[in-house]
Amino acid sequence: MARITIADIARRAGVSTAAVSYALNGRPGVSDTTRELVLQIAAELGWAPSSAARSLSGAYTETVGLVLARAPETLGFESFYMQFVAGIESELAARDYGLLLQVAPDVDAELRTYRKWRAARRVDGIVMVDPRVPDPRLDLLVGEDALPAVVVGDPSLSGGLTSVYTDDAAAVRSCVAYLAELGHRAVAHVTGPAEFGHTHIRDDAFAREAAARGLTVEVRRTDYTPEAGVTATRDLLARDRGAPGGVTAVVYDSDATAFAGLGVAAELGLRVPDDVSLVAWDDSPLCRAAFPQLTALSHDVAKYGAHVARRLFERMAGEPAASYRDQTPELRIRASTAPPALAG
Amino acid sequence: MARITIADIARRAGVSTAAVSYALNGRPGVSDTTRELVLQIAAELGWAPSSAARSLSGAYTETVGLVLARAPETLGFESFYMQFVAGIESELAARDYGLLLQVAPDVDAELRTYRKWRAARRVDGIVMVDPRVPDPRLDLLVGEDALPAVVVGDPSLSGGLTSVYTDDAAAVRSCVAYLAELGHRAVAHVTGPAEFGHTHIRDDAFAREAAARGLTVEVRRTDYTPEAGVTATRDLLARDRGAPGGVTAVVYDSDATAFAGLGVAAELGLRVPDDVSLVAWDDSPLCRAAFPQLTALSHDVAKYGAHVARRLFERMAGEPAASYRDQTPELRIRASTAPPALAG
Repeated sequence: MARITIADIARRAGVSTAAVSYALNGRPGVSDTTRELVLQIAAELGWAPSSAARSLSGAYTETVGLVLARAPETLGFESFYMQFVAGIESELAARDYGLLLQVAPDVDAELRTYRKWRAARRVDGIVMVDPRVPDPRLDLLVGEDALPAVVVGDPSLSGGLTSVYTDDAAAVRSCVAYLAELGHRAVAHVTGPAEFGHTHIRDDAFAREAAARGLTVEVRRTDYTPEAGVTATRDLLARDRGAPGGVTAVVYDSDATAFAGLGVAAELGLRVPDDVSLVAWDDSPLCRAAFPQLTALSHDVAKYGAHVARRLFERMAGEPAASYRDQTPELRIRASTAPPALAG
Repeated sequence: MARITIADIARRAGVSTAAVSYALNGRPGVSDTTRELVLQIAAELGWAPSSAARSLSGAYTETVGLVLARAPETLGFESFYMQFVAGIESELAARDYGLLLQVAPDVDAELRTYRKWRAARRVDGIVMVDPRVPDPRLDLLVGEDALPAVVVGDPSLSGGLTSVYTDDAAAVRSCVAYLAELGHRAVAHVTGPAEFGHTHIRDDAFAREAAARGLTVEVRRTDYTPEAGVTATRDLLARDRGAPGGVTAVVYDSDATAFAGLGVAAELGLRVPDDVSLVAWDDSPLCRAAFPQLTALSHDVAKYGAHVARRLFERMAGEPAASYRDQTPELRIRASTAPPALAG
């Protein structure tokens, strides 16, 4: 059978080939009625080649790639990624782009995905999250034939690529300053995996600000799972149980671990915030549904995703690489923080 | 410039074209060293066409599509979708497929996506979730030129397409029976959106089993957000506050709303499970990190996603449509349920 072209569809529909092209590509410029008619005829004729033809003509796949290099069992407990993806999608949908999402169990699998996308031009651009130190992915995102990319992370971690980032150090400082001003002297930081660059930035800012304010800090590392949050919090609070000199405030690097911490406090019979103050990051509807409501570092993650997508479209359109700071997470003070019982 | 072919790459690499094809398509059959060499040369030569060429030759896009038709702001509070996607990806990765994910703010946007995918053959197959009553998407998934699809939902909702489902009615019955046997007489069901078919199946099974056991039921509908869980639970419990004849057990259709319910109980000074029993669905690490740990209907959601993907590959390979029952969610009894204080 001869190949169906848009001219065939245009003839049958009684419209111009331009109108067919608009309709098939989901772009403005035709009425809804014409669009429906064209899509119906295209389907009837078995017209198929669009994305393939576009790719061969050196044009676009109309697809953006995102790899989440986390063990599948550690995904789904935080609101961050779904919100972030929803934000990206809001910009992609407006341009009729799709998101090719790959959950890679480890960095090697992620690298294989990048190589394949690059070799086969499966996507027009890449959103790279969770930059590591060092990050082998960056080597695949530079050079003449590299795909346009935006790194979601600090410019110091982006290897000269376009980056969109939040000032996590400033956010951490505001949080430590707040706890110090409440009168806390011994605080804990339940942080994230050591391989993520943002963990280093947060850890470092936390330690420096605490030292500058004369606070002692205990650090517990987690993989962001609720289980790890339970273990870390038990370890921090079971020993002291509110005794003098013990930890009186805990800052968590995720909402899921903070939630787990709230459960452990209840289990140990510690009152929040009377016996121990808790702070979550990121803020989420779960933080607001908790009792007491959790004080949290708040950031519009969907908006962040949308911002990243816009910068990627600029990059794909040939704009030079640059760094863009997104809104700094703000401390939302709720019911889970208060002066320590033994202070003042 | 002449088009780069796999023969050019084979010549330069000193290997067979078959080896190049294996390497570029990420399939077994070549050593890691050869694969690396081939990918490097392919990148150097600017080889690009694979997915495009495959599509034009009538072969595969090596992509599966999934649309989540929920408002972005309601995503990300439940562990279900990320776990489900991770499960799908585990099977796709083994076959070198990608997942094209679209978050559509409403059904119209989802329909546009399906039409586009069908007309342009952007994906080889579709995973359709959250079947509605009636569901306009089904019309686009039947007929000769329709894309192969698997509906994640009860066969009664799948319009004759391949379906993978859980026996939600049986799960609900086991939960109501358990509460009745504990001695509860007045229970509440905090359920999901009315437009989802599974909501009807669950609501209906809940009402029937409760009636058969002589229980009274209060129903509150939510959109699965924690906020809605808070409102529903306050409405149910604030009035009675454990008074005789009041609701003594609440069953939630999501983990996020159950979590919200736990917070409301604490806010109202009601002890869980002494004053009120709570049950969550689906089970998640958050349920196990809560205090008290939440009794929940438990289902391996990642495994469910993997099962769905395997059935889709069978369907894409030409197997006839059929229905496949996945594991029935099992009641995991934890610390949030007990006999009602006023019973016995």
